[in-house]
Amino acid sequence: MSDEQQKAERHNQRMAKKKAIVDEKIQQAQKEQGVLIINTGNGKGKSSAAFGMVARALGHGMKVGIVQFIKGSYATGEEAFFRRFPDEVEYHVMGEGFTWETQDRERDIAAAEAAWEQAARMLSDPSYALVILDELNIVLKYKYLALETVLSALRQRPAMQHVVVTGRAAPEGLMEIADTVTEMGLLKHAFNSGIKAQPGVEL
Amino acid sequence: MSDEQQKAERHNQRMAKKKAIVDEKIQQAQKEQGVLIINTGNGKGKSSAAFGMVARALGHGMKVGIVQFIKGSYATGEEAFFRRFPDEVEYHVMGEGFTWETQDRERDIAAAEAAWEQAARMLSDPSYALVILDELNIVLKYKYLALETVLSALRQRPAMQHVVVTGRAAPEGLMEIADTVTEMGLLKHAFNSGIKAQPGVEL
Repeated sequence: MSDEQQKAERHNQRMAKKKAIVDEKIQQAQKEQGVLIINTGNGKGKSSAAFGMVARALGHGMKVGIVQFIKGSYATGEEAFFRRFPDEVEYHVMGEGFTWETQDRERDIAAAEAAWEQAARMLSDPSYALVILDELNIVLKYKYLALETVLSALRQRPAMQHVVVTGRAAPEGLMEIADTVTEMGLLKHAFNSGIKAQPGVEL
Repeated sequence: MSDEQQKAERHNQRMAKKKAIVDEKIQQAQKEQGVLIINTGNGKGKSSAAFGMVARALGHGMKVGIVQFIKGSYATGEEAFFRRFPDEVEYHVMGEGFTWETQDRERDIAAAEAAWEQAARMLSDPSYALVILDELNIVLKYKYLALETVLSALRQRPAMQHVVVTGRAAPEGLMEIADTVTEMGLLKHAFNSGIKAQPGVEL
């Protein structure tokens, strides 16, 4: 083989190798699987974005499970609305809510564990295409649930199941296993302009 | 009057003045009015948060208007879902969508203006308690609509009407008149981990 031919040969081999690498990357990018999404930060919209994804999933004919880890007036509108669709949406609100006032840690832990029972059941049932764990981050921040318990349930969930976890101060370990982490940052707040929260939009 | 008495008198006057200031602040914080909320930034959840607020408003029995300024597959789930409630939600999607490919600026402007007509009508009708102007920011960024036209319609809208504007790169002038501005920041993205977008969650 002439030098020219050898040169062309080596060139073709390099090209073939490059093409193989590109093909592999394309194939990897095709993998469909459930994603873990975290909405954190001090800004607004963490829970609203999760509830918007509920609407999106329902539009795609999916079944959705929602566990709200902090009982409060902040999401009563969403609760009232999504409870209209009992066949498509299973909605749980943590019974007790937190007892910041009484500082009764034992009671908070019991409430968090009861809510987690519902979440764990959904995370082991492939019929839920989307599971919302609203304000779970704060439960983890206060160590009312063990992070490892939550991480292993998320790791072992059905392959196609999507999960959205909301709340400030998402723990590092949770963000590590997440596919998408969005930080909602507050640039400007209506409270600063002296407008009180009201139905329809809690600011 | 003794020095002691004069001292007590001045003290009382200072206290009375402080109390008046506090009372005024409390009164200001009581004002109920529609709020302008902007969801911007490069992260996820800008539109989802707006659609979550639609669910919240519907839960409070409010009527909602939605104008989607960019036609695309990204919100087909929400559209399919919220179109189930024609009596409660009026949903408009910009007919043409943008023509990034053909770079036909005239056609883009015509499409933007047609969509804005719907928005302007909603912004002058008090029966819409919440109006979503989805991706309006990008229309303004490309100057397909005049910022001043949008600002004056927002300033003159019904006093109790809430508006949510979404999209990257919200113009400074719009943020100035907003009550709440949230910047969605991307900390981690599933595309980086090679998962392709899919129904139910567009990442």
